[in-house]
Amino acid sequence: MNFSSKLLEEAVAEFAKLPGVGQKTALRLVLHLLNRDVEDVQKFSTAVSRLRNEIQFCQTCHNISDTSTCEICASHRRDHSLICVVEDTRDVMAIENTNQYNGVYHVLGGLISPMDGIGPADLQVDSLVERLKENSVKEIIFALSATMEGDTTIFYLHKRLKQFNINISTIARGIAFGGELEYVDEITLGRSIVTRIPYENSLS
Amino acid sequence: MNFSSKLLEEAVAEFAKLPGVGQKTALRLVLHLLNRDVEDVQKFSTAVSRLRNEIQFCQTCHNISDTSTCEICASHRRDHSLICVVEDTRDVMAIENTNQYNGVYHVLGGLISPMDGIGPADLQVDSLVERLKENSVKEIIFALSATMEGDTTIFYLHKRLKQFNINISTIARGIAFGGELEYVDEITLGRSIVTRIPYENSLS
Repeated sequence: MNFSSKLLEEAVAEFAKLPGVGQKTALRLVLHLLNRDVEDVQKFSTAVSRLRNEIQFCQTCHNISDTSTCEICASHRRDHSLICVVEDTRDVMAIENTNQYNGVYHVLGGLISPMDGIGPADLQVDSLVERLKENSVKEIIFALSATMEGDTTIFYLHKRLKQFNINISTIARGIAFGGELEYVDEITLGRSIVTRIPYENSLS
Repeated sequence: MNFSSKLLEEAVAEFAKLPGVGQKTALRLVLHLLNRDVEDVQKFSTAVSRLRNEIQFCQTCHNISDTSTCEICASHRRDHSLICVVEDTRDVMAIENTNQYNGVYHVLGGLISPMDGIGPADLQVDSLVERLKENSVKEIIFALSATMEGDTTIFYLHKRLKQFNINISTIARGIAFGGELEYVDEITLGRSIVTRIPYENSLS
């Protein structure tokens, strides 16, 4: 592209580095910012810069936080004997939105993926083991994606954690609410028959 | 969404103000920035802030520029008696990319659109009239979108500009290169028959 301005070119190049944003989209976003008020754009720029410079990670669960201990870990109303292991902060947000969980979390920061060169050492695995040693935890729930990477991570963590005398569970897999049987894939359907639950339990 | 951090929430809110970016996409972009180096993110933030604070518009053609007169208007190799009227800087870039035009530009900054409350006073129309008074311009080319707003703008500008003794033309409309006749809409096809050109001219 022939840019009439270096400033414009630089801003477009920076936006085009974002995932899923190409040159044309970047240009559209930048021209949109140019039409906004100076203060608005300054707010945008400051929010981005502060985010990266000032954000912290909770020293207990490693979730994104503004303080050294996140609100969930600091709360006395949460059940600290129940830890839900998730991949990243988006999963914490998704589970919190359900209003169905009252325990605490442990954010791994990724999943084991040999293809991408991510091993257990790159994740918050050791800190999870330390947490279990120091605290009286009764149950660990794995809430990881139902993918090859998620299953690998659960398999590895299970081996590391079975030395502790705690319950280890994973979130239920099966047919989603509103899902029609004929459109469900064979693996999900097959597993949901094998892991069927008593009808009374499904009502709660 | 339940954000675990105010900084995160603010950054997501700022990204979600961009056109075509919703809450989920904004969160994805922000988490991507969090995984980048501090310097990288600072570069992004600075590029955005400098763009809005330091960018200028060429005082002649009103295109985006780093200086008070843009490179095209300052160039002696361009034909200053030929002015191409366009909607915004993207159109300048598109035409420059063709390498087929050697005149100068006039950027209106939008199109007349009564539905959106944009009238001639919101656009760089008066400055175009002034430009024609002061300079010896031989031809004006309208390179505006083939939409209702584009046609309305051309109609209005034509009325304002016919007092000057200059040629007024619009870019050719017709079937695009590679376009198959059976898929062309009736209006385009009908017009391209009415405004047919001698075969010799089409070869140049």
